This record gives sequence, C-alpha cells and structure tokens, in this order.
Amino acid sequence: MESAIDTHLQCPRTLSRRVADDYKPPFPMWVARADPSLKQVVMGHFGVQSTSGDEQARAASLDALRHIVASFQGADGPGHFDLVDYADTDGHDNRMAIAYWTDPAAFARWETAAPVRDWWQAEARLSDGIGYFREIIAPRVEQFETLYGFQDAFPGVGAVMDRGGSEVEEHGYWGSMRDRIPASQTDWMAATGDLGIASGDPQTRGRVVIAGHDNLCLIRSGQDWEEADAEERALYLDEIEPTLRAGMDFLRDEGGTVGCYSNRYVRHIDLDGRAIDQSFDLGLWRSLDLLERWAESHPTHLRIFVTFFRVATSLQKLRLYHEVLVADAADQHYEYINCHPNTGLMRDARSAAR
Amino acid sequence: MESAIDTHLQCPRTLSRRVADDYKPPFPMWVARADPSLKQVVMGHFGVQSTSGDEQARAASLDALRHIVASFQGADGPGHFDLVDYADTDGHDNRMAIAYWTDPAAFARWETAAPVRDWWQAEARLSDGIGYFREIIAPRVEQFETLYGFQDAFPGVGAVMDRGGSEVEEHGYWGSMRDRIPASQTDWMAATGDLGIASGDPQTRGRVVIAGHDNLCLIRSGQDWEEADAEERALYLDEIEPTLRAGMDFLRDEGGTVGCYSNRYVRHIDLDGRAIDQSFDLGLWRSLDLLERWAESHPTHLRIFVTFFRVATSLQKLRLYHEVLVADAADQHYEYINCHPNTGLMRDARSAAR
Repeated sequence: MESAIDTHLQCPRTLSRRVADDYKPPFPMWVARADPSLKQVVMGHFGVQSTSGDEQARAASLDALRHIVASFQGADGPGHFDLVDYADTDGHDNRMAIAYWTDPAAFARWETAAPVRDWWQAEARLSDGIGYFREIIAPRVEQFETLYGFQDAFPGVGAVMDRGGSEVEEHGYWGSMRDRIPASQTDWMAATGDLGIASGDPQTRGRVVIAGHDNLCLIRSGQDWEEADAEERALYLDEIEPTLRAGMDFLRDEGGTVGCYSNRYVRHIDLDGRAIDQSFDLGLWRSLDLLERWAESHPTHLRIFVTFFRVATSLQKLRLYHEVLVADAADQHYEYINCHPNTGLMRDARSAAR
Repeated sequence: MESAIDTHLQCPRTLSRRVADDYKPPFPMWVARADPSLKQVVMGHFGVQSTSGDEQARAASLDALRHIVASFQGADGPGHFDLVDYADTDGHDNRMAIAYWTDPAAFARWETAAPVRDWWQAEARLSDGIGYFREIIAPRVEQFETLYGFQDAFPGVGAVMDRGGSEVEEHGYWGSMRDRIPASQTDWMAATGDLGIASGDPQTRGRVVIAGHDNLCLIRSGQDWEEADAEERALYLDEIEPTLRAGMDFLRDEGGTVGCYSNRYVRHIDLDGRAIDQSFDLGLWRSLDLLERWAESHPTHLRIFVTFFRVATSLQKLRLYHEVLVADAADQHYEYINCHPNTGLMRDARSAAR
C-alpha cells in the first residue's frame, strides 16, 4: 500500500494529512499513476445543445458531435475521449465529447490548427440552429487526484496515465479526496476571485466567454455497469442509481446554494447517440472545500457512501471511480456559443458579475 | 465567533486543522469555557449492578446508589453529578452516578477519606448480592472538548466549567471533534498499549482492576427533551431516538469490531430511580480515530447527523450536546467488584490479555 501522492510529487508538508501514518483503509482502492514527465493534463468538454423535441436540431447536434470527434484525429488529438449526453433544467438536450490531453503543447497545436479554430470561430456556429460550448481546464499534476474501485482499464484521465494503478492509503474517510491531491501538502486550495463574464452577454445567445478563478474545482464521478452481472446491475440500478440521481438533480437545480456552479449527470453514448451502460457526474464547483461540505453532509450522498461502504469489498464487475481537480484561473477557458443563458458556468457568472 | 480552542490553550501547531481559516459553520454551536486555572478534571462513573428481575437486588442497588450520592456531600465532593440507569447485554440492570471534579487533589482527598475508601474496600461489596464498579478518568484540559446546541445550563463537564459558552468555528464537518481538542494542535492522540488486567479475574466475579492505555477515548453524547414542546418531542422520540438506539445497540453488542470497548445508552433518573427526560450515550473507545471512523461511516450515525443538520437551526428546547476526551494511562483507574465479566472494560481487557 502506498500514499496516493506519488513519490515524485511528495514534498515537505506545511499542512498535515487528516489521518495519522498508521491509518488503514477499510477496503482496497486504487489510483492511476503517471510517468514523472507528465506535468499537466488538458481536459476539454466539447458540447452541442439542442432544444428538446426539435428533431432537426437533435440530428444536427449529432452531426456536430461527429465533426468534433473527427477533429480529434491526428497526432495532436486527445489521448482519450468519451461521448455522453444529458438533459439540462432548461429543456435542452446536450451531447458532449470529454477529451484528455497529456501534453498542453499538443492541445494548443490542435486547438489553433486552422480546421479546428475556423470551425469553432465560424459565423455558422451562431446560426445553424444549435448551441455549442467548450470548457477547457488544465490542472497541473499537483492539482488532481483519481480513485478507482478496480485496477485496470481506467476511465477518464486514468486512460491517459501510463503506469497502471497503485493501492493507496488515503481513502475511506472524509477528507481523503483532499489528502490525495498533491497540492494539499502545502496549500488549502482556497477559491479566490469570482466567475466573470470576459466577453459577450449570456442573455443574447451569442458568443460568451466566461473567466474562471483560481481553484475552481471539477469532479467527475462515474459508474460502469456494462459488465455487471444481474445481481450487481440490480444493486446499481435499484439501490444506488435512484439515490444518486436525486443527489445529482439537487445539484443541477439547487447547487448554486451550496457552491456548485454546474452539475451534469451524463450517460455515455456511442457515435450514433445510443446509450452505453456507463455514466458519470460532471460537477464544477466554486471550491474543493464546498464540494467536501456537500459530500459529507447531504443525505443523498451519505446514503450512496453508506451503500458503497457496505458493498465495496464484494464488487466484481460494477466499476465505480472518480477524479477531482482544482485549476488556476489562467488554465481555464470557457466559451458558450448560441447556448441558453443557464448553460454551464454562465448561470453563476451572470449573477457574480452584477 | 471564536476557535473552540481557548486562547490560553492555543500553541504553535505541528498539525493543521482540517478546515482553512475562512471556514464558516452552517449553524451556531457553543463550547464551555473554563478559567485558565482549570488544569485537569476528574470524571467518575460509580456504578451498581443487579440481575434483571431480582427485585431485592434492584432495591439494594438503589440503596447503594443513594449511599454513593450521600458520599458526594462535603467540601471534597464533586462539583456536579448525574444519576442514570441502563440495561446491559448480559441481563443486568445498572445504575450509575457520573460525577465531575475540577480539582484532582480534592478528588484524591475525597476518594481516600475513610468513609469512602472503607466502603469501597469492604468485604461486604463482594457479598451483598449486587455488583459495583468505579471508572475514574482524569483528562487534562488539553485533552477534552465540549459541544452544545444551546448556550446555558450546560450538562456534564460543562456544569463545572465556570465561564459560560462561546460560539465556535470548529463544528459541522467531520474532524471537527478532533479539531476542538487542544492537544490536536500537536498530537495525533494515537492509542498506545492495550487494555490489561492489573489484578483479579473477570470470570470469578471478584475484584478486578483494569489498566487503561494512553489515549483511550471517552464520549458522552446527550439529549434533553424535558422542556421540549410536542413538536420537538415528536422529532426526538419518533425520528431521532429510534435511529440513535439502533446505533447505540450496535455499539453495545458489536462495538468490539470497530474499536468500542464499552457502550452504555443511559437514561437519567432521580434518587428514587424514576426516569427523567434526559439521556446520553457513554462510550469508551480504544482511540479517537476509531470513534471518528465509526461516526462518519455508520448508517445509524449518519442518519442522526443528517437529521440534526436539517433541524439544527430551528431547535428551541430540545438540547443536544456531547463531550469527548482522551486520557493518559496514568490518569485512568477502573475497578469492578462482583460484576459479570462483560461489564465495562472487562470484556475487551480479558481478550487483550490472552
């Protein structure tokens, strides 16, 4: 068993771990490991939005998603991506590609290459009847953590890390998420500043750029029941999922009251838009500590936590995982094009700018 | 709002608080304050035990409890005491006086004065048909904390502290209990050593002295619904109490599996043995961290926690509180006289001594 903080990321502490050195977790969990040459990852959410019930727009959104996936091809494309869809509170369907780069320079080359740049900047993005958005967050390796209930074929950012997994000490207690992030050794990772509107006006459905702030926090928390047997499918679908959905609906609809800027409970899809038996929640939070407070006090989350504790040692094929990061303001870029004003970070940036 | 650690007990930290300086709790809670001259308190549990259904023994136990209370009179007696009863797992009724001294020297004079000393040492204690026990724990002020959902007439150790209450920052998050104990600034408070049998044999029902170990942990967690109106009585009796009881029963019967040496869910009584609408749980744990792990992961405790969060800001007369301590081995004394072998700390000392 090892520390979740990889040896090359350990440093003299000014802040202590929540638990003493002799802490032993109640069941095994693993983290992804990367070569020390990995310094920063880039995570991109590339979304398309159509009004629910508008089948023409929905078809256009699938075409647009396919275009985005096609743009991932080539040497500078992402090392891994997932496709998902979700409905939002404002009567819109959304599809997203979530992509991961391990080389910020490659991402920059990809993003600024003419075919990608021109497509996103084209006047047509404002006039072809659907919305688009890109949310780019690039945490340094000191700023993120992973946690998996399994040891192979890691999803999400784990898919682009190259050294497999390690069983780690820091899990099974509140505060372990923070303790797994290397920056926590010396930094409270406090949010500073506010979400701002860098350009545009969310109300006009034009192009809007939102400015993030330091230590804005992202969580991707996922589940994969594709390979699960009948018993584990029932555990997930009947016992875990309804509670999970209630918690995620709360965050989507009322998250602003607890520090959650945006919450999307998404389902994996294939390139034809068909659902796959995997899902995750993608939450954007003002700060890690507000995410902690919600996670450790909200009934829905505590209920899931209790269920997970109960079944953790017996899970075979049901795969549960998460990844959490904080990022510097300078490493965040959010652009919304022809989207409704509550899309993504626009909702809370709007009120913060008043 | 202040730190739960009183100014004269603050020191340069080698261990950090779990939350940053800008943490704000979700609702107000208070701690008891004492004059800086208070260095150490002595808490004594003076118990009497009778076989359930044996009315003669039960009457004798009430007489014995009255004798103990009478012995509290005088200048060296405790500053405060409560009377309680509880049934244990082994078919025995127990009554206890829980007493608090703010001056260890006064306690020592009280305990060694002939009337008290001779009564406890008398041969009759082994032969008058009931059991007796004394559990003495004397934490230094650095080693304990309190927390109240109200501001006046503090129960328990708060009754012998003399400077009223302060609204404090460190509550509303897992780990705040530890953060309220002054020693946590520099000390993990890890348990060292094992419970041992210093003399006697629990199986023979004679006199048994149990030796504690460093950082053995005690929690008293209480509720007082005497003054509560109908709505709050219903909240407590219908919603909180059944869940609380389930959790306390678990700790009483299966606590050994999670580090709980002894758990007594007790009801306050008067000198005639009649129940009063106050109760508390008195738990003895191997260590603070094992108590933390249970509290933050067991379904019954999480359910109570969620309910408390929901109602905390609206409580009027329902009084909820707790006090938690760790103590040095040298500041603990446990004696069981003619008690069944699972009484108090005997159960786990017995197995630890094998």
